[in-house]
Amino acid sequence: MPTWETYLEENQARYQDEMLDLLRIPSVSALPERVDDVRQAAQWVAGRLSSAGLDNARILPTGGHPVVYADWLHAPGRPTVMIYGHFDVQPADPLELWTTPPFEPQVRDGRVYARGASDDKGNMLIPILAVEALLRAEGGLPVNVKFFLEGQEEIGSPQLPGFIAAHRDLLACDVVVSADGGQYDEGRPGLAISCKGLGGVQIDVRGARSDLHSGVYGGAVANPIHALVRILDSMRGPDGKITVEGFYDKVKPLSADERAAIAAVPFDEAAMRTQLGVPALVSEAGYMPQEHMAARPTLEVNGIWGGFQGEGAKTVLPGEAHAKITCRLVPDQDPETIRTLLAAHVERHAPAGVSVSVQPLPGAARPYHIPADHWANQAAAAVLTELYGVEPYHLRSGGSIPVCELFQESLGAYTVGFAFGLRDEQIHAPDEFFRLESFRRGQLAYGRLLHCLSR
Amino acid sequence: MPTWETYLEENQARYQDEMLDLLRIPSVSALPERVDDVRQAAQWVAGRLSSAGLDNARILPTGGHPVVYADWLHAPGRPTVMIYGHFDVQPADPLELWTTPPFEPQVRDGRVYARGASDDKGNMLIPILAVEALLRAEGGLPVNVKFFLEGQEEIGSPQLPGFIAAHRDLLACDVVVSADGGQYDEGRPGLAISCKGLGGVQIDVRGARSDLHSGVYGGAVANPIHALVRILDSMRGPDGKITVEGFYDKVKPLSADERAAIAAVPFDEAAMRTQLGVPALVSEAGYMPQEHMAARPTLEVNGIWGGFQGEGAKTVLPGEAHAKITCRLVPDQDPETIRTLLAAHVERHAPAGVSVSVQPLPGAARPYHIPADHWANQAAAAVLTELYGVEPYHLRSGGSIPVCELFQESLGAYTVGFAFGLRDEQIHAPDEFFRLESFRRGQLAYGRLLHCLSR
Repeated sequence: MPTWETYLEENQARYQDEMLDLLRIPSVSALPERVDDVRQAAQWVAGRLSSAGLDNARILPTGGHPVVYADWLHAPGRPTVMIYGHFDVQPADPLELWTTPPFEPQVRDGRVYARGASDDKGNMLIPILAVEALLRAEGGLPVNVKFFLEGQEEIGSPQLPGFIAAHRDLLACDVVVSADGGQYDEGRPGLAISCKGLGGVQIDVRGARSDLHSGVYGGAVANPIHALVRILDSMRGPDGKITVEGFYDKVKPLSADERAAIAAVPFDEAAMRTQLGVPALVSEAGYMPQEHMAARPTLEVNGIWGGFQGEGAKTVLPGEAHAKITCRLVPDQDPETIRTLLAAHVERHAPAGVSVSVQPLPGAARPYHIPADHWANQAAAAVLTELYGVEPYHLRSGGSIPVCELFQESLGAYTVGFAFGLRDEQIHAPDEFFRLESFRRGQLAYGRLLHCLSR
Repeated sequence: MPTWETYLEENQARYQDEMLDLLRIPSVSALPERVDDVRQAAQWVAGRLSSAGLDNARILPTGGHPVVYADWLHAPGRPTVMIYGHFDVQPADPLELWTTPPFEPQVRDGRVYARGASDDKGNMLIPILAVEALLRAEGGLPVNVKFFLEGQEEIGSPQLPGFIAAHRDLLACDVVVSADGGQYDEGRPGLAISCKGLGGVQIDVRGARSDLHSGVYGGAVANPIHALVRILDSMRGPDGKITVEGFYDKVKPLSADERAAIAAVPFDEAAMRTQLGVPALVSEAGYMPQEHMAARPTLEVNGIWGGFQGEGAKTVLPGEAHAKITCRLVPDQDPETIRTLLAAHVERHAPAGVSVSVQPLPGAARPYHIPADHWANQAAAAVLTELYGVEPYHLRSGGSIPVCELFQESLGAYTVGFAFGLRDEQIHAPDEFFRLESFRRGQLAYGRLLHCLSR
């Protein structure tokens, strides 16, 4: 009887072929004409979970793209680990920028090129294969395992909150391990410990019923653009602080340890300036740019428009002006509260002569943070340290991953990020690829992690 | 031998037919396919000036649409009066909103309906007909007269400055009388004594080379929209004052007489609010809205844009943002100086982390103001008072009429507005019309004005 590691080694060629099979299914969740392909991918995944030796593998309806569930619950007294990932992919256009067609996977130089190779089909397969190896070689798993794989991540998982709320018992677990994401680089692991929340509003300012002649009416009729820029400029101070009343009320101060963990991650300010083409980075007073990005809330105007935007001059006094604002939130800011504070601020700062309305933007998310010393995080860190020969960075993302907060809110379980994508793998872009070395290393890592999580 | 007034009376039916003839020519200066029609209108006008008894009637090239010139210079020792007007018209679309076709003039209820009826063919014909009546009935004119009629007013007279500068001797005169414009209402005359200048810039703010993920980069990379709203908000205070350094340096204070003249013009604030659909009018501290509109400079953002403007949310940190600003200027503000002050202000207030550039917008104009007691203005006021039985209001326009300042700058001659359009005549809009009563009254008024101007 081989060890599970040997089993993995012996089956690597087959696993690679299976990955290519899955990558051939164009399961683009954003395209209505691909709805059957998403379902086909779900069927493929459910079948693969079953053949790996898991129980209860099945497709479950959500009202939108389906989810796939399977479990192995024969380790009484041990923790239950739920593994998360997704089998839907981003659209592939522009097709002409792909070296080989996005749904005809090709292996070149140890890399698999295809849409979804890194995000997330390759990564999502890894734990299934690791579980198969453990079951085949050891006859069981060191922990109870549930798989919860979805088909709507790339469109924002619209039906997921409702589905999870309705299936709390089915999905009950002690911790979630997410197979969606990546490592710091080829030689250094990373553990994502937080991502920011999100909450935004659209501000609509209206003045006169229509655009007016700026000569005839200028001076006596309020200009909605001026009103809007006044409102927007009142939201941030020259020191980078957000001046919306109450905005920082719930924000926890960064501890010395947290600042040290952020400082430990390499940050090349000059390289970033050059890459982005900006004359200088900026930041909130009292914080380094990397601290602001990682762990301080932000308020950004995502878009603004009003009046004449064409070539040349048109001397109108416009009738309306609009802006969209989103805030990235940190613990314990709540998106609903932030929207309410934004609306109150707008009302308080609206100049005379115009009417102003504020509407919530879609896509709210609460901030998520797992303590760096959470037991499952420690297990993951130990596995990564052994595999890479160096400790993982603790990484904070400025982006928002609503599903982490969703699992915590609905299931009371933290999510540990444990995936093997790398930043150069062109996810959401042409020529997406995944390293076969990551594919192999990930399988070993998952096998060890499940052992480590058995406590 | 009839008097000139009798001559006008006897020829009114013919004059009206002639106006309809001219209105049939679709001399739309903005449309390249109408260039021959503009020329045909010029020929019609030159022929009509000649048949009226004027000398040297001819079409002169400008490099664009032509001008028409004619003169009668047989009153030695008397002033030379140059009459200005234009024979080009605005485009007529949307055609479906016209009751009858725009270039098939129709008389209904004492009004001529056609594109250009009021602006400016009907008005422009009036002085030609008055001059004919004087020449026929009196054998000469009480003053020297030049006609300078153009074919590019509706596209901003692009070749006019160069033409006038190159023909200073031909166009030399003591005063200009403009047959383009109108009266206050049917029962009350008005004399336009000023219009505002115009000068503007476009502000372009650039941050990163492309739009960025607002979560990943927010906080460390300056947002060009925030930079732009900071710059724009720094240009006007909450009291309605423009805070661009040096902006008011050349502005003359309003005298008590000037304020009284503005106050004398009826102004129904509640009606204006209702008409425009605004909750309140605004104004500069220390000035009534009607004073601000009439005689104080303004700064208006005509348009602003940047980032995501579609439905829903897109959490970008945009790479650029833009705004167009124009100022309406009063004596003795200079548009070039104002643009320089705007650029200096922008540079002084540009936040760190972005690059900002300022470019002039096309369409600069100097402010124009004729003293209310200028001799030609007094003559015009006397004629209007006699004809209407009530003195004219002295009107200040917030708009810009570059040609007035051009005549003053190039020829050293003030322009007296003397035309008979009324505000309800749908100029630049479907169903434009001109009142036959105004057409007749205007001819009488011009005959008397030329007598009054003989001093």
